[in-house]
Amino acid sequence: MVSPKTRYLVFFQYWGTKYSGVMQTSAEQSGVGVQNYLEKAAQNLKPVVPIKFHISSRTDSGVHALCNSAHLDIQRAPGKPAFQERVLIGCLNHHLKPEPIRILSAYRVTNNFHARFSALSRTYIYRLLMGCTHHSEIPVFERDLCWAPPGGYLNVPAMQDAAQFLLGTHDFSTFCSLNSETPFRSPVKTILQADIQPSSGFLSHHYEYRGLQFWELKFKSRSFLYRQVRRMVGALVAVGQGKLAPHHIKELLEMKDARAFPPFAMAPSSGLFLKSVEYNEAG
Amino acid sequence: MVSPKTRYLVFFQYWGTKYSGVMQTSAEQSGVGVQNYLEKAAQNLKPVVPIKFHISSRTDSGVHALCNSAHLDIQRAPGKPAFQERVLIGCLNHHLKPEPIRILSAYRVTNNFHARFSALSRTYIYRLLMGCTHHSEIPVFERDLCWAPPGGYLNVPAMQDAAQFLLGTHDFSTFCSLNSETPFRSPVKTILQADIQPSSGFLSHHYEYRGLQFWELKFKSRSFLYRQVRRMVGALVAVGQGKLAPHHIKELLEMKDARAFPPFAMAPSSGLFLKSVEYNEAG
Repeated sequence: MVSPKTRYLVFFQYWGTKYSGVMQTSAEQSGVGVQNYLEKAAQNLKPVVPIKFHISSRTDSGVHALCNSAHLDIQRAPGKPAFQERVLIGCLNHHLKPEPIRILSAYRVTNNFHARFSALSRTYIYRLLMGCTHHSEIPVFERDLCWAPPGGYLNVPAMQDAAQFLLGTHDFSTFCSLNSETPFRSPVKTILQADIQPSSGFLSHHYEYRGLQFWELKFKSRSFLYRQVRRMVGALVAVGQGKLAPHHIKELLEMKDARAFPPFAMAPSSGLFLKSVEYNEAG
Repeated sequence: MVSPKTRYLVFFQYWGTKYSGVMQTSAEQSGVGVQNYLEKAAQNLKPVVPIKFHISSRTDSGVHALCNSAHLDIQRAPGKPAFQERVLIGCLNHHLKPEPIRILSAYRVTNNFHARFSALSRTYIYRLLMGCTHHSEIPVFERDLCWAPPGGYLNVPAMQDAAQFLLGTHDFSTFCSLNSETPFRSPVKTILQADIQPSSGFLSHHYEYRGLQFWELKFKSRSFLYRQVRRMVGALVAVGQGKLAPHHIKELLEMKDARAFPPFAMAPSSGLFLKSVEYNEAG
């Protein structure tokens, strides 16, 4: 007799610095993915078949998540009832405890729900720190959690003007790093939101005298190309540094060629956070 | 010919989780102090005599500093000029780089300046996280940087009433953990500030829906007894949990006996930050 499987959607967060990215890595690869730890923790649920996490949103090495999502199926021994959501959360977090990875919530979903394909949109934020003349001025509590571009303060109004060119539907080929999947994915994406807002740092109200400014860039789209957010941020920072004019962003888009992207302009992973994955239901 | 020594006051910050405290440890002690790393970095200045940091404010294992201070004397080879402040900062930070310790600023001071005895006051803050029903709900970015007392939300107005009893000059014997120095120090201290204010967490504006609340307790005094802040916070949290009434804080003070302090009520080190050390001049 085959026991029925139960599908869950889980939301989870992680501090990405020590991981090779969110996706599972094999034994041959250097670095370990967040998914490896999630699936290892899930072994403790004693399922009849090993549990696989289907991650909604890939994040690279060093990229953080305030909230990523995945679905998983749990098949228990015959006669055992499906796990309650709070039991599932508690068990996974108990076994994830040494890692900076946390399950935030879990929802039972129908068997045709897919964490990746059912997602309506993703929202990323990118944290910039301005006012540092040297990287040693980054507060120790912000290390690995922001980017302090060299050259001091940025021209934020110019960056805000430039960000407008990214809004809407475009061929983002120039803003896509090449990987094995590039030839099979459409480079046309629709950016629903591209905001640049002042923000705050960890306890920064206690050191306002240091003249450090935190800013957040926020991007929302159904999906993004490989390293698209980091390339968009890097180009906007180049505008803020006066290396590009706002209209150059439009011209880069029109080139539709990854090789047209200014060399070395991609923003580092440390400042990037997946903020949320949006669905119609369940969270 | 003896070369003259130059005295500097430096301000520095650190993430305390991995250190045994700020003070130097010897080879026999487990754990390493922040001071060990500071003095090791200072060896690279090639002084004629080894450089000793005279730390202004002791902090325990796991306690953080947004800003602590120390003075040090540098004696260079004959004929070599005194280091400029920015050179001193740059060299120390370069060699501290792998550690979450940073020199924030440096000032030349007179040879009778003493980082500890010249300090007019110290300000500590303590970060509380309310709204967690289980410690696994602490955001991964706040781990080791706050305390989420068990039992959910606290009665903040009662805590604010209770904090008023701590203000002013009292014998704080009840709020002092015993150590080898206790018999030689006066237990009378004057608390100049004891505030409880709402605060924010790291990127907490992105997860307001989770119902987590950050609060900061702020204490200012010329000096504090051993673990006084953690004992005061623990007692105020006990008031917030309804385990003590506000007037019990007054009664605890009047007992003037460390053994009268409620067992297990001391707040953990993870939420405590030395915010600043105040002087008449130089920073």
